[in-house]
Amino acid sequence: MNKHNNSLQIVFLFYDGMTALDVVGPHEILCRLPRVSVKRVALSPGKISTDSGLMLYADYALSNITHADILFIPGAGNATTLRNYPEILNWVRSIHSKTTWTTSVCTGSLILGAAGILTGIKATTHWAALDRLRTWDAELIEERIVQSGKIITAAGVSAGIDMALTLAAKISGDNVAKALQLGIEYDPEPPFDVGSPKKADPMLLESLRKKMLASFESD
Amino acid sequence: MNKHNNSLQIVFLFYDGMTALDVVGPHEILCRLPRVSVKRVALSPGKISTDSGLMLYADYALSNITHADILFIPGAGNATTLRNYPEILNWVRSIHSKTTWTTSVCTGSLILGAAGILTGIKATTHWAALDRLRTWDAELIEERIVQSGKIITAAGVSAGIDMALTLAAKISGDNVAKALQLGIEYDPEPPFDVGSPKKADPMLLESLRKKMLASFESD
Repeated sequence: MNKHNNSLQIVFLFYDGMTALDVVGPHEILCRLPRVSVKRVALSPGKISTDSGLMLYADYALSNITHADILFIPGAGNATTLRNYPEILNWVRSIHSKTTWTTSVCTGSLILGAAGILTGIKATTHWAALDRLRTWDAELIEERIVQSGKIITAAGVSAGIDMALTLAAKISGDNVAKALQLGIEYDPEPPFDVGSPKKADPMLLESLRKKMLASFESD
Repeated sequence: MNKHNNSLQIVFLFYDGMTALDVVGPHEILCRLPRVSVKRVALSPGKISTDSGLMLYADYALSNITHADILFIPGAGNATTLRNYPEILNWVRSIHSKTTWTTSVCTGSLILGAAGILTGIKATTHWAALDRLRTWDAELIEERIVQSGKIITAAGVSAGIDMALTLAAKISGDNVAKALQLGIEYDPEPPFDVGSPKKADPMLLESLRKKMLASFESD
């Protein structure tokens, strides 16, 4: 499962403008798998700004990381701007070529798309960005978690928690994943039943879609 | 609602060892309420280590913040060690005296308890820490979100997302909270139905409880 040492190398891509919860849900779960080594990597190590004002830290520069068993790509309102960073896209493509699992949450799949990884691949993204994903010739699947071979893409933001627990079960078995789910007391009680575009009020959906697309357009 | 300016002051307490997801779930939601000013505050500003290895960043020192409309306290495996930091407990007590809402997630309620705020108050915490909460004379309620006047405590880690959406509805109305829930596509599909101690396998529950209590004891 790992060519370098006894631990599973999990690498989280960080970049300015990313959505903190996209990363932190999966990070909280995957870092607690047995025998893992977790690295947070960005163009340059140091402070990384997220789109909620919270600052995170990246430990490594892309150039320091040449291998990942699990690659994780978070989303952002500005995820599509990463198409202007060939250094990031080349790194994603190179790391992906040797991963066991390549994963994304939310508009992180647009970065996989821009890296040329999703051509003809079943994938998903945040509901408001589905048309954007089509740009990269992915086969859109409107589900919360979509697996296509070693590529797992998740829907918007909070879907990363479900994706990471599902991946934890694949890697370490159901009992480990169940312990992790109980450890974060993940027995959700959302106050409303509107978290998916299929359930939301059409007016709310359209107004939010316009707002989010405007944010994408301003990239 | 706010004595200082036109925005609602939301203050997140950060401290070394805290659990990143406890903070980041609620932060992702509450920072997107209309007309809010969000501050992240710690004993000293700068890098804050979390119990998953992820580093966050606090913008302000406690001494710079004298008012919050909403005070938010995250939990940690080592939350009870904060009883050894009178500067933090005094600050929590002082800020709480003038809040509109005082909130916690997971073992953050043990910090409210240590600050003397929960005596005779209905409250909750992570399921493995309920006995610890009794130490502070709180009235234990084994529910996911417990409101007692202006104090809202949530159960473990992921419960912060439900709590923050519930609080968002109280502050800004159901429509704003629904838009926030749809924005983070929060339509949970946990892979297992074991996220609460009431649903978990008793053997898994006991083994995890022992492990977590050992981590508390090592404080």
